[in-house]
Amino acid sequence: MYNLEMGRWQPNARGRLEQAALELYTERGFEQTTVAEIAERTGLTERTFFRYFADKREVLFAGAGSLQELLVSTVAGAPDSVAPIDAVAAALAAAGAVFEERRDYSRRRQGVIAANAALQERELIKLASLASAIAEALRGRGVKEPAASLTAEAGIAVFKIAFERWIDEADRHDLAQLIRDSLDQLKAVIAGP
Amino acid sequence: MYNLEMGRWQPNARGRLEQAALELYTERGFEQTTVAEIAERTGLTERTFFRYFADKREVLFAGAGSLQELLVSTVAGAPDSVAPIDAVAAALAAAGAVFEERRDYSRRRQGVIAANAALQERELIKLASLASAIAEALRGRGVKEPAASLTAEAGIAVFKIAFERWIDEADRHDLAQLIRDSLDQLKAVIAGP
Repeated sequence: MYNLEMGRWQPNARGRLEQAALELYTERGFEQTTVAEIAERTGLTERTFFRYFADKREVLFAGAGSLQELLVSTVAGAPDSVAPIDAVAAALAAAGAVFEERRDYSRRRQGVIAANAALQERELIKLASLASAIAEALRGRGVKEPAASLTAEAGIAVFKIAFERWIDEADRHDLAQLIRDSLDQLKAVIAGP
Repeated sequence: MYNLEMGRWQPNARGRLEQAALELYTERGFEQTTVAEIAERTGLTERTFFRYFADKREVLFAGAGSLQELLVSTVAGAPDSVAPIDAVAAALAAAGAVFEERRDYSRRRQGVIAANAALQERELIKLASLASAIAEALRGRGVKEPAASLTAEAGIAVFKIAFERWIDEADRHDLAQLIRDSLDQLKAVIAGP
């Protein structure tokens, strides 16, 4: 059985498992869904599931690694003349464009996370890790502390607030625009009256 | 036994349990310490421990409620003429003064948290809750969204970075000063070149 499946090609098994997991989490709730059910819906085995994901929670955070790579490489790759906050803004805009292509998936994912305290905690950890990675990328550009960490934390705060607005059905702006708006608003509130 | 202890006055049982817990977490590690050992070191019973704390993790977060109350009441109580970011800065300074009186405790507590991933997660959740509470207090002052959330998130970012510098042995500034410095630096990095 194991060898048979290992030898068989599973077209886009990862993506199918992600979609099936999100459907089941939305229909039945995250807690009530088992890995066996996710596998069953895709016609794959549990063994295949665990080849891609550590557990049913991590299906929802599988994109965190590539998001971090995109943010870090954009910050690191900005020309030397670009100010730290503008390098971070460029990275967030690049991330925003990726999310824009997955708006429906992102919205449903956020609904599942909002309904579960443990998933909200995991999301906070993801955001904290992204802030640390951005701060490190800024230090790599020669930005000193605490400026590097403050810029990174401010960037993640802007992203978080913009993302919440973007998820909100009522708001029809695109994410990159909302990120720019949030950064402008942050500048205004920080500068004070 | 239960009745006897319930009837006996335990002077500052909460504070003694907090101190004993922190000593044991520092000496043996958080994971290796049991509630029985914490109780034993104070001469109190496990039953008394659980009268004050839900579990051994919550001993380290027992102050979060009063910290939140202090932040919220300071933001809410600032005169109407005070700008949102300045109301938040005043709240952080008030919190800073409270931490200053417990510098040694705070430093040892941070050492325990830094050594344990689950405690770091709990700390992130605490900070996120504080940001939400501050945002709500700002909305209570008539600040609109997303300005309220952005101001609150920026304030917590400033506090987090200042707190890390304050915990660092090498730095001898007081926390209120570090908070002011961090806010000034945030203004500078956000404004850009």
